[in-house]
Amino acid sequence: MLKTHKLAIIGLGHVGSAVLARAIACQLAAEIVCIDIKPEVAHGEAVDATHSIACALTPNVHVYSGGFEEVKDADVIICAAGPSILPGGVMDRLTLAKENIAVIRSIMTEVTKYTREAVFIMITNPLDVTTHVAATEFGYPEGRLFGTGTTLETLRFKSILGAHYHVDPTDVQGYMLGEHGNSAFPAWSTVSIGGVPLEKLDDFFEHEEGFDCEKVGGEVVNTAYDVLNSKGWTNTGIAMGACRLAKAVLYDEHAVLPVSMPFSGEYGIEDVSLSLPSVIGKEGVLKRVPLPLPAEEEDALRKSAKSVKAVLRGNGVIA
Amino acid sequence: MLKTHKLAIIGLGHVGSAVLARAIACQLAAEIVCIDIKPEVAHGEAVDATHSIACALTPNVHVYSGGFEEVKDADVIICAAGPSILPGGVMDRLTLAKENIAVIRSIMTEVTKYTREAVFIMITNPLDVTTHVAATEFGYPEGRLFGTGTTLETLRFKSILGAHYHVDPTDVQGYMLGEHGNSAFPAWSTVSIGGVPLEKLDDFFEHEEGFDCEKVGGEVVNTAYDVLNSKGWTNTGIAMGACRLAKAVLYDEHAVLPVSMPFSGEYGIEDVSLSLPSVIGKEGVLKRVPLPLPAEEEDALRKSAKSVKAVLRGNGVIA
Amino acid sequence: MLKTHKLAIIGLGHVGSAVLARAIACQLAAEIVCIDIKPEVAHGEAVDATHSIACALTPNVHVYSGGFEEVKDADVIICAAGPSILPGGVMDRLTLAKENIAVIRSIMTEVTKYTREAVFIMITNPLDVTTHVAATEFGYPEGRLFGTGTTLETLRFKSILGAHYHVDPTDVQGYMLGEHGNSAFPAWSTVSIGGVPLEKLDDFFEHEEGFDCEKVGGEVVNTAYDVLNSKGWTNTGIAMGACRLAKAVLYDEHAVLPVSMPFSGEYGIEDVSLSLPSVIGKEGVLKRVPLPLPAEEEDALRKSAKSVKAVLRGNGVIA
Amino acid sequence: MLKTHKLAIIGLGHVGSAVLARAIACQLAAEIVCIDIKPEVAHGEAVDATHSIACALTPNVHVYSGGFEEVKDADVIICAAGPSILPGGVMDRLTLAKENIAVIRSIMTEVTKYTREAVFIMITNPLDVTTHVAATEFGYPEGRLFGTGTTLETLRFKSILGAHYHVDPTDVQGYMLGEHGNSAFPAWSTVSIGGVPLEKLDDFFEHEEGFDCEKVGGEVVNTAYDVLNSKGWTNTGIAMGACRLAKAVLYDEHAVLPVSMPFSGEYGIEDVSLSLPSVIGKEGVLKRVPLPLPAEEEDALRKSAKSVKAVLRGNGVIA
Repeated sequence: MLKTHKLAIIGLGHVGSAVLARAIACQLAAEIVCIDIKPEVAHGEAVDATHSIACALTPNVHVYSGGFEEVKDADVIICAAGPSILPGGVMDRLTLAKENIAVIRSIMTEVTKYTREAVFIMITNPLDVTTHVAATEFGYPEGRLFGTGTTLETLRFKSILGAHYHVDPTDVQGYMLGEHGNSAFPAWSTVSIGGVPLEKLDDFFEHEEGFDCEKVGGEVVNTAYDVLNSKGWTNTGIAMGACRLAKAVLYDEHAVLPVSMPFSGEYGIEDVSLSLPSVIGKEGVLKRVPLPLPAEEEDALRKSAKSVKAVLRGNGVIA
Repeated sequence: MLKTHKLAIIGLGHVGSAVLARAIACQLAAEIVCIDIKPEVAHGEAVDATHSIACALTPNVHVYSGGFEEVKDADVIICAAGPSILPGGVMDRLTLAKENIAVIRSIMTEVTKYTREAVFIMITNPLDVTTHVAATEFGYPEGRLFGTGTTLETLRFKSILGAHYHVDPTDVQGYMLGEHGNSAFPAWSTVSIGGVPLEKLDDFFEHEEGFDCEKVGGEVVNTAYDVLNSKGWTNTGIAMGACRLAKAVLYDEHAVLPVSMPFSGEYGIEDVSLSLPSVIGKEGVLKRVPLPLPAEEEDALRKSAKSVKAVLRGNGVIA
Repeated sequence: MLKTHKLAIIGLGHVGSAVLARAIACQLAAEIVCIDIKPEVAHGEAVDATHSIACALTPNVHVYSGGFEEVKDADVIICAAGPSILPGGVMDRLTLAKENIAVIRSIMTEVTKYTREAVFIMITNPLDVTTHVAATEFGYPEGRLFGTGTTLETLRFKSILGAHYHVDPTDVQGYMLGEHGNSAFPAWSTVSIGGVPLEKLDDFFEHEEGFDCEKVGGEVVNTAYDVLNSKGWTNTGIAMGACRLAKAVLYDEHAVLPVSMPFSGEYGIEDVSLSLPSVIGKEGVLKRVPLPLPAEEEDALRKSAKSVKAVLRGNGVIA
Repeated sequence: MLKTHKLAIIGLGHVGSAVLARAIACQLAAEIVCIDIKPEVAHGEAVDATHSIACALTPNVHVYSGGFEEVKDADVIICAAGPSILPGGVMDRLTLAKENIAVIRSIMTEVTKYTREAVFIMITNPLDVTTHVAATEFGYPEGRLFGTGTTLETLRFKSILGAHYHVDPTDVQGYMLGEHGNSAFPAWSTVSIGGVPLEKLDDFFEHEEGFDCEKVGGEVVNTAYDVLNSKGWTNTGIAMGACRLAKAVLYDEHAVLPVSMPFSGEYGIEDVSLSLPSVIGKEGVLKRVPLPLPAEEEDALRKSAKSVKAVLRGNGVIA
């Protein structure tokens, strides 16, 4: 009999609730279960979303809250649990890592009681750290668990370049790679617009001021803090990124998106999770694309690896 | 030359930001301006939403923040400004009314400096009070400004009835009318599912327990508090309702939805705004439908009128 | 592992190709297989559709052509095979019945070699005849095979009433029931708009001329011939109807739509397939709604039964 | 007051009717008028489409048929009028050109009686010839009229490359440029997937056989004939292409798509219309992108120019 699609969202804070609204808008699944350490929050979000569905603008998705046993027949799990970075540096990055490693271990312990079949998409920060822990410590099949990674940075990058050259950001080609966070770097060698390579963009597209790689790279990292400090959290962009990935899974799209998963020797790197362009389909990451990078971008990738490894090591995840 | 569609969202709190995300998902407009008394919040929401757009799942909507002058060429304005009811009754209803009447007067003073052309959709609570003030004191053309009213209660009503009888809520016919809030009432005379009238529903659809009008009416009011108390605010449902209305305007759909606007003698009622089914199109409310109501429902409507008038009078809006 | 959704379309003529385009637009499934007695037509439609998908406006659906063995893992099958009614009565109704009974028997023989799991949606005309044959002769589980039935007449009915009263047709409540074709009848007892019952519509909604039931009933039947004679076939409306039903299945929506399946004593009728409002979900028809009909509508239903039975008998399907 | 969006479709044959269905699915406009030399065909398509709309899956778009005066307030016009290439070469290319030049002149004479404001998207073949005639002989503002051009070839190209390397075609970067038709050529210099340049694709993506530029280039041209010969016409792909362009206009997306319009000295070419990547927004083509092409691609472009000019000259359009 027909297996309708089921999405589980773990963590219904600012990010998780934005994922929920977007997932319904994207028609991702017939059934969405909301799971939160505060059951009343999961319940409130599910009920509010249910009201929205009575409007004929979306399919009649069944949204409800429940416990971890509900992941049993989920096709996709999106995890946005755990505390976030707050404006003004209330919690530093290492403290956040420590706390969320515990959160994720506890969640994975629960999830893997019921399933290792669902494609698991991690959002919780520090993303590469939580992804590494979840992907390596719980016997989850390789590639079936991955982090949103630099999908969000890539969206921001396209957005900034699109605005700079007055073109639709979806027509900007290019990836941000490496760590999700401060050491993410633009893979400039992958950038083009309308078939025009990076170095000639200024000649072919309108722009207010000459292009400056360093400045744009910095803007991508800063725009996260800009949003964080302005509204108090970031959620709209990442929610879309996570739903984009879930859609690639549920339609087996073979979309090429930069996600985080453990490296196994690409560029000589291992024992760490970072983002590379990856082919995403119904089994999760179908294929990594360790694309040829010029020396300075490979250096940036190593810098990312070092940065994430330091946190992993500092928390005893790797030796 | 082509006039692309422009939406202005005033107030980017929990509700306004949910409206923003949903408006993008619904492809409502080519341009969305975010206006908030805290410009940095409007800025943060606009930037975060902009990042989401670089994903190819939505059109390349131009989202940005700005001042009230930006409503000048807006086609639709959705107003979600002002403080909200908080869990646990931190602010009582009369205090909220007083405060938000001031907020709305200040907003309308600004808006009407620039336009009375845009269709104006009010969400701010107490909805019927703010709608009445905005619709009657600023020379806005009749019907072009209205409140979401019992659109949300109607969604909740359909949702609850749909769940009760195990059918898609969009196939439940029926309206909640009157005041948006405690005195909203189900117009039972309008209810049917699949062509089966209310009194025979139990015979034709599965249900866990016998149908009880009073209980369901109560549930509709209580579900709002349930959401409020569980997650701390309500936003997903109302955001969808507001976008549904905006879509009806932008596509001139002539959809029949229950919205609030000043009564002008319907059922002998005037000097107050309440919700009735209304035909919604490009000019806003094209037509009110003061449908024939049985005596007890007309009584409920009068009770709503009395309740809202008391607040209007208590704040000197009407004599 | 994730079972992505698969749709099979049998028959890629005017109707089947319109179903294909609409199914892609509705994001119904990750995989669509096109099956036609002329493999090159199925191939051509699949390739053309595949080109359309490279545009980012739809998910990356995998569309291809194949033989009947491809229904093996289909979740939904939509059958639009067989010759159609042509303008100017080139083929009379009985001849069409004879021919398409043979077509459907041949298709069902093939399909049931591979599956009785997929929900099967019949479009082939004469709809109630083909549905009855397919549903009763091949051991298909009850309710899992049904015909689009008066879903299309109901769309036309809403369209005509909506235009008459200048409201969005989706806000017109009401069903056409009985036979798909000449003896379909409006169940006037189910009609309302915005909570206003049929007999008072003239008082509450604008209209060019007074309402005339007989005239509107006739218009619904005639509009089919109007389309047929004007463009040479009908496909857009029915394609949408079939996809609406498929969506109800794939999202387990419990939508209430009027579809055709064998009667088992409702209103004392059996041995024939006709349309009644039905709850549609992942198993197909979850529930029939033999709603209370006034005497003259029950008569109309019996007339439909008689009309379809005559064709079934004339072709030896029933005794 | 709100100007709702209006689309006019001229020519409701296989292509125009597919554009109509897709335009409704894409929610392009609140109003669509169908214009055809056979008014009954336009009428039939409009009525059939109207029936489809009563289903709640799309907005309540107003679809109707009418005369050329209806383009007066159109925002976008899509022209698919005139006879097409038929399978088996029933009509040769030059004969088709002669006939459709006359058709387009007659249409433009009518259209420009009422508007030069609407963005005009040409589909009629031979595309570059009809586009050149329409764009240069009727005082239409530069850039506001353009042809779908190699948008369709580009979709096919991405589709073929995506299938070859088992990735989502929307993640294949690259353009087909030049003439819409036999001399269209892949701008190999613009091709990459997931940041991997053309020459390294074989190393990074799965594929059944080694990549062969010539073979793929040929496949793109041949797939059109494959579809044509298999199903008798091509319409799904081109309908999507035209709607993609219309969406870019109606949302002022600044999308970069390869469309045809008169050259004015790019690469030293003039007096002919061909496709180049172009920035598309509310005024039509906002900007051409005469991207740097390697010598052999520039040669291919010149070959296209020569080929189209020969037809223009043969028909006395240019000297």
